Amino acid sequence: MTLRPSLLALALMLSPLPLLAADAPAKYRSAQEIIEASPASDWHTPAPENTLYMNLEGGRVIIELAPEFAPEHAGNIRTMAREHFWDGLSIYRSQDNFVVQFGDADADDSAKAKSMGSAKKHLPAEFQRPAKGLAFTALPDRDGWAPKTGFVGDFAVGSDGQQTWLAHCYGALGAGRNNDEDSSVGAELYVVTGQSPRQLDRNITLVGRVLKGMELLSSIQRGPEPMGFYENTAERTPIVSIQLASELPADQRVPLQVLRTDSKTFTDAVEARRNRVDGFYKRAAGHIDLCNIPLPVRVGAAVK
Amino acid sequence: MTLRPSLLALALMLSPLPLLAADAPAKYRSAQEIIEASPASDWHTPAPENTLYMNLEGGRVIIELAPEFAPEHAGNIRTMAREHFWDGLSIYRSQDNFVVQFGDADADDSAKAKSMGSAKKHLPAEFQRPAKGLAFTALPDRDGWAPKTGFVGDFAVGSDGQQTWLAHCYGALGAGRNNDEDSSVGAELYVVTGQSPRQLDRNITLVGRVLKGMELLSSIQRGPEPMGFYENTAERTPIVSIQLASELPADQRVPLQVLRTDSKTFTDAVEARRNRVDGFYKRAAGHIDLCNIPLPVRVGAAVK
Repeated sequence: MTLRPSLLALALMLSPLPLLAADAPAKYRSAQEIIEASPASDWHTPAPENTLYMNLEGGRVIIELAPEFAPEHAGNIRTMAREHFWDGLSIYRSQDNFVVQFGDADADDSAKAKSMGSAKKHLPAEFQRPAKGLAFTALPDRDGWAPKTGFVGDFAVGSDGQQTWLAHCYGALGAGRNNDEDSSVGAELYVVTGQSPRQLDRNITLVGRVLKGMELLSSIQRGPEPMGFYENTAERTPIVSIQLASELPADQRVPLQVLRTDSKTFTDAVEARRNRVDGFYKRAAGHIDLCNIPLPVRVGAAVK
Repeated sequence: MTLRPSLLALALMLSPLPLLAADAPAKYRSAQEIIEASPASDWHTPAPENTLYMNLEGGRVIIELAPEFAPEHAGNIRTMAREHFWDGLSIYRSQDNFVVQFGDADADDSAKAKSMGSAKKHLPAEFQRPAKGLAFTALPDRDGWAPKTGFVGDFAVGSDGQQTWLAHCYGALGAGRNNDEDSSVGAELYVVTGQSPRQLDRNITLVGRVLKGMELLSSIQRGPEPMGFYENTAERTPIVSIQLASELPADQRVPLQVLRTDSKTFTDAVEARRNRVDGFYKRAAGHIDLCNIPLPVRVGAAVK
């Protein structure tokens, strides 16, 4: 790709990176070009025991659990997946620009509710955890929701330096609860499908994120306003099954690879998105918000 | 709604508003309660000549044009609506977490492209306009995309004090273009359906916003990656028609009302969302981003 002089000038003006000598200006590479040039060592495959396959009639949603942040909820979800809790249940809510929610639509009706089997019936709230012990990759920009933002492993997080928490970005997986902060058990789950509702951060236990297949959730017909719960049960989306990748033979698992957020490739790709310089962009933003950063995922040979 | 003492204490701690006397603490009201208590004078009905009805087989999307920001594009769109340019065309792109795009899928093929009739074939870029002369309601919080953010009329905007521009929030209507900044004519349009792509601000001409019916656009099946253009033309969503409300007899127009963003009701509702204090929220954010603020819209008797 050849840059036109005016755009290259813009790139140099706006770049926060050290400039090279004038006779050898840095060539702008798009995030995609940077990612395509990445070494294999920049990628990892999430642990199968933290990987959920949500099988819908229309395809498969792949979810990664976050036991570093919500060990009790992740543990309960693993138990319920092994015991086929969600198989035959449904996505029973889709609220525009907010969330889809799934599990047992009759969970609040003790006469109809499906048994949670050997899963725990009460869990502590897991809204945040100590920052200490986490490998945190900070972003260069500030937002108004958290003193610091960045990534821990495959997860977008906020932090105040003492405590760190998962952020409600597009694709985040949360554990629905009632008014009591410790009323979630991981049976009723939601996925963010709209503009990041960061006001929910540290108010609900987040327990993972969707890695692949968001389009299957985001395009579900919305339920009636204001909350999006389907009044007509026929409009719910059936869940064929939710299973742990670790329950399948290795050769039946999807060989998903995720770009490491602590790699130089990821840092460079974020920077390329902060300051876009190509034939299309006339003005580079010089900024990016946490929830505007996609996590690169590809399907290939499984890697460690 | 009775507040529990701990939550009320939190509300008072976090409130940036003057506190009342200790024996008469301010009762928290939700945004919905504030809006429901609003006087009729806080609402207005957008001008029919700035209101577009996009009629799909599944229902109607109502769009407001923003001639204060993009007079040339709004003018061309009015001309094309009057001349039925979009009737029988389609939504030919849906990219997950980004946009839907509609118009003439063959626009780039001069042999197949539909005639634009008497609409102008070239327009200036309308990325921003002077701040002077606009009634700007500022938000209390900063974001990283613009020095100031707020509302002008029904539109979310960024501003640097000299220039003001429409922001790429959920529901924003933009005019697709090629690489040249003045290559949009308003025939090919997009609506934001994902996390606000604010990096596009001041890079494309925005020309309005969806007021009602977003769920009809956001739930459209996504097209193939990476861009979401349908390879199979049968997957496109037909546009029955796009018409100006002003072309219809008054009694056939939808009596839509929009909350005035310069009203105390709107300011109070934003504040209630910045610091939520109810049985559910355990921690008020003390912050809100421009694109997290919904514009209250209702259907009722038309008002001035």
